[in-house]
Amino acid sequence: MRQPLIFPILALAASGLCWAQTADDSRPATSNLPGAEYPRIHSDLRVTFRVTAPSAQKVQVVPGGNDNGLGKGPYDMLRDEKGVWTVTIPPAVPGFHYYWFSVDGSASNDPSTFTYFGWNKESSGIEVPDKTLDFYDVKDVPHGDVRAHWYYSKTTAAWRRVYVYTPPDYDKSPKARYPVLYLQHGSGESERGWTAQGRANFILDNLIAAKKAQPMIIVMENGMVAAKAGTAPAAARRNDAFGEVVVNDLLPMIDTTYRTIPDRMHRAIAGLSMGAGQATQIGLGNLDKFAHIGSFSGGGIRNFDPKTSNGGVFSDAAAFNKKVPVFWMGAGSAEASRATSVKASVEAMNKAGIKAIWFEAPGTSHEWETWRKCLLDFAPRLFRK
Amino acid sequence: MRQPLIFPILALAASGLCWAQTADDSRPATSNLPGAEYPRIHSDLRVTFRVTAPSAQKVQVVPGGNDNGLGKGPYDMLRDEKGVWTVTIPPAVPGFHYYWFSVDGSASNDPSTFTYFGWNKESSGIEVPDKTLDFYDVKDVPHGDVRAHWYYSKTTAAWRRVYVYTPPDYDKSPKARYPVLYLQHGSGESERGWTAQGRANFILDNLIAAKKAQPMIIVMENGMVAAKAGTAPAAARRNDAFGEVVVNDLLPMIDTTYRTIPDRMHRAIAGLSMGAGQATQIGLGNLDKFAHIGSFSGGGIRNFDPKTSNGGVFSDAAAFNKKVPVFWMGAGSAEASRATSVKASVEAMNKAGIKAIWFEAPGTSHEWETWRKCLLDFAPRLFRK
Repeated sequence: MRQPLIFPILALAASGLCWAQTADDSRPATSNLPGAEYPRIHSDLRVTFRVTAPSAQKVQVVPGGNDNGLGKGPYDMLRDEKGVWTVTIPPAVPGFHYYWFSVDGSASNDPSTFTYFGWNKESSGIEVPDKTLDFYDVKDVPHGDVRAHWYYSKTTAAWRRVYVYTPPDYDKSPKARYPVLYLQHGSGESERGWTAQGRANFILDNLIAAKKAQPMIIVMENGMVAAKAGTAPAAARRNDAFGEVVVNDLLPMIDTTYRTIPDRMHRAIAGLSMGAGQATQIGLGNLDKFAHIGSFSGGGIRNFDPKTSNGGVFSDAAAFNKKVPVFWMGAGSAEASRATSVKASVEAMNKAGIKAIWFEAPGTSHEWETWRKCLLDFAPRLFRK
Repeated sequence: MRQPLIFPILALAASGLCWAQTADDSRPATSNLPGAEYPRIHSDLRVTFRVTAPSAQKVQVVPGGNDNGLGKGPYDMLRDEKGVWTVTIPPAVPGFHYYWFSVDGSASNDPSTFTYFGWNKESSGIEVPDKTLDFYDVKDVPHGDVRAHWYYSKTTAAWRRVYVYTPPDYDKSPKARYPVLYLQHGSGESERGWTAQGRANFILDNLIAAKKAQPMIIVMENGMVAAKAGTAPAAARRNDAFGEVVVNDLLPMIDTTYRTIPDRMHRAIAGLSMGAGQATQIGLGNLDKFAHIGSFSGGGIRNFDPKTSNGGVFSDAAAFNKKVPVFWMGAGSAEASRATSVKASVEAMNKAGIKAIWFEAPGTSHEWETWRKCLLDFAPRLFRK
């Protein structure tokens, strides 16, 4: 009776898989294409990837970045006699993770998944479940629409596509008006990110159904605005250019197209990583237009000085607290150096009397799972009487 | 002075490119990712593809299918000393074409393009311009929204995502009600197809602005409904299952969620290829719900017999013509055998007194350019007084 148990262990050990188990309780990832059997997720969150590449010499699984919940990779895959390559990687962190294959050194998406715009390209993605959380699940609650809307931007001299979440009761209440959250993705992503990767619409559907957040419109634009030639360095100029798009083109269009409450107390701006910098810059630079600001895994306010930081906007703490009811900064506990630095800047602000809020997403790093948790904490604080 | 001119000709000839020209007037395809220089389209519609794959032994451009406007392929690419592979293919047919690379036999999308759901997977796509047409361009006209809407389907026991185009004046006219076109993609595609590949929203924006089509809602669902186990053969069961989704779940939800005119004379159903079969089956099978039917590159009505075809629905031609003001079939002239067969079935119907309409899209085959042209002809005929 021992042999049937020992044999697979030996076979797996021989094949170099260090997380071998005899019982395979794996299931296809929920993010797979309909009917696709791989990638498969085991109950201990190991993930098995598989791809067919009969003529390839070397195939690897490449997590998107060095700080990705799939681990450090790349992971060498093993070829069988039919040219099917497989690897099982150690337990992954729950959440959404970008990845792709490297086929003889060339990046190649997994034909078994949908693609998500990240890393400046269409990338494969996998959803690793967290059994302790359901706040971003598709539940049996009323759902808002996510609209693709086209508008002309004078700043970029082009038609642009913006995604707009309208809350579940928007169409049923034709006289109702709603506050607006402007919500930005990170570097190398796009206006698709906050719904496809971030599930912002489901997070808000669930919060609104539970009466934990005010019904609100969410506006998601593409912050990767091309820097204009001959101006300041690219990244800085990008944020300036995006600020011009938001203030001069996007915001007036939203207020005339959707049933908003068009005043500063009913406008928030937030973003993640690069988008956190944009939200902070645009929000603090336009306090006549925005009252609430959220920075998800941003850089914090470096060398905070209440008198000089951000043009002195913090110099009168009482006035700032009244003017900006929500000034919020968060990061994941697993992006430790960022979390430490941002937390320190929030503490410096608190010390100066600024009611900045610090939030730490438990267990996750510079990834969408952190930003989903940020939105879950941030959104309920907005637009309270 | 001759050498600078001769040298490139020799170099190109030596590299095996048969469409060599000295002047390179190529431009990045409009469908490229922002900033991506390749693929490039030449003024004579040759296309140059490029990809970096230093360790690969063989790289090819693979058009999506044997009947694709990029030609028959696959096209072998040539490697330079840095591992960059390039090929220029003969002039392409205008329109949207699926393609991907084959890297050592493994399908790999072009990292320079967005992906489109086709061939049952995320696939690269390229837009080859037609200078004689502008009906699907993004013009300076009012634009409708394309909404992703989630609803629960009892038929599939799952939440489903449907795309809904609302015409430009929909939000500005909160009392107005609109007719509805249900519009389906082809096999291996999804609810994203008609807007991302088909540009149906821009086609309707332009038609409505020119007062050539009635403002209408367009509903685009995913027709690749899983066949249930233990029933009829898969393809037939798929169409039956999708019909149940449309009639029992989708249509009632649309009529209670959007401001429709909820009667049969203000409902049309159309689709392409597999979706043409679905539209014809669902439309003719539910004439209490649909009055207008469009078949884009479908199979026609085989062995048309007015007394027996489709359960005898055509047996009283005068009654059918009154009941179905638009019964429309189209195909591309370059998908010749299909066009011939469908045209013959329309002629047989006409001979029997049925006012079926035949349309031939000039110069294009079983591709999105044909279906864009079909929509351009079909939509203006709908919902006329």
